[in-house]
Amino acid sequence: MKEYSKSALNKVKRGANRAVYDVDKINKILDAGFIGYVSYVYDGQAISLPMAYGRDKNKIYLHGSLKNRMLLSVLASESMSITVMHLDALVLARSGLHHSVNYRSATIFGKARRIEDSVEKEKILKCIVDHMMIGRWEELRPINQKELNATLVIEMTIESASAKIRDVGVKDEKDDEKLPIWAGILPIKQVAEFPISDELLPEHVEVPDHVIQYYNINKADRN
Amino acid sequence: MKEYSKSALNKVKRGANRAVYDVDKINKILDAGFIGYVSYVYDGQAISLPMAYGRDKNKIYLHGSLKNRMLLSVLASESMSITVMHLDALVLARSGLHHSVNYRSATIFGKARRIEDSVEKEKILKCIVDHMMIGRWEELRPINQKELNATLVIEMTIESASAKIRDVGVKDEKDDEKLPIWAGILPIKQVAEFPISDELLPEHVEVPDHVIQYYNINKADRN
Repeated sequence: MKEYSKSALNKVKRGANRAVYDVDKINKILDAGFIGYVSYVYDGQAISLPMAYGRDKNKIYLHGSLKNRMLLSVLASESMSITVMHLDALVLARSGLHHSVNYRSATIFGKARRIEDSVEKEKILKCIVDHMMIGRWEELRPINQKELNATLVIEMTIESASAKIRDVGVKDEKDDEKLPIWAGILPIKQVAEFPISDELLPEHVEVPDHVIQYYNINKADRN
Repeated sequence: MKEYSKSALNKVKRGANRAVYDVDKINKILDAGFIGYVSYVYDGQAISLPMAYGRDKNKIYLHGSLKNRMLLSVLASESMSITVMHLDALVLARSGLHHSVNYRSATIFGKARRIEDSVEKEKILKCIVDHMMIGRWEELRPINQKELNATLVIEMTIESASAKIRDVGVKDEKDDEKLPIWAGILPIKQVAEFPISDELLPEHVEVPDHVIQYYNINKADRN
């Protein structure tokens, strides 16, 4: 599959010129972050909460406590959705209504299922931790059976999706362009600062390469 | 009102020790950003989309096109919700399940109403633009009646809310603390880079003070 087919659910209505259905481009947006806004219906009301996720091919993974209200609710529902957005710039126009932001945003739809098998669960938890920081899982104290039993692991298969990308400059009314009003864009970046070691660390434990690498890449440009 | 009362809707179930119901603290989270995840129900399915907002006291303001599916849907529903989250750090523990993030997140609930009066609409659009960048509205070409007529403006009254804040270090199992595994936090910041002027600007138009101020404050610490 190279592109998600359009339906009433995922078709972008406003700003259709910025709509993206391409699978690779949407995966790139998903991989540029690790926090998604998972939406669910509670008592007829839509709520969304931020959650860490991992991705492998067309699967998105979430985890939480066995009693997590949101996760139990998405398991009980026919379909779930997650939205991920990266803010890239403020777009400051000459008039109020042409103010905008540059961004990359994706909304994915699909069905959730609960993972019961311990081997599969462990593989998925590795995927989630490594999605946050590549190379991290291998250096950790191995997960134990008690922890696996106490963790709810969910796999979402992406069935439909759409994204919107705005990455251009100011778009003002033609007549406004000659006005003596400053317009432009203000780039916004999410950056990492230098890691702060836990004070309980034994003295000889240094900041490992995978953390330094993350810092180096992300201090310049997170995505 | 100093604190939102707890109900089944807004009561924090997981990590209740991090729960915040204090009105001022929740307003501070709302004012530290300007993009919120507005949730709505479409065809039985919960979806959330990022939107710019403004705040004045216990009112949250949104705007969009007259045909915006999400805004029309929240107007038609009994209650709406918006979630705002700021990521402050990666929390890198010695075991996988103690990985976490430091963050400030708020979810607000309330009823939406459509604003019809032009004077009120203009005041609200100023609130939204100035929430993104203080001092911006006054320097712009004034909004005209045609633009006001073509814009859907929504006022949400916050009736209930809760927030979660995590701002501490690594919390590992006691037995893991002596392991030779690096643990610590990696602070994450959203920063502004220097403004890029629109190429169509008349030559004498300089970057104004309110933009430089935003840049100076935000390059160091956006919030």
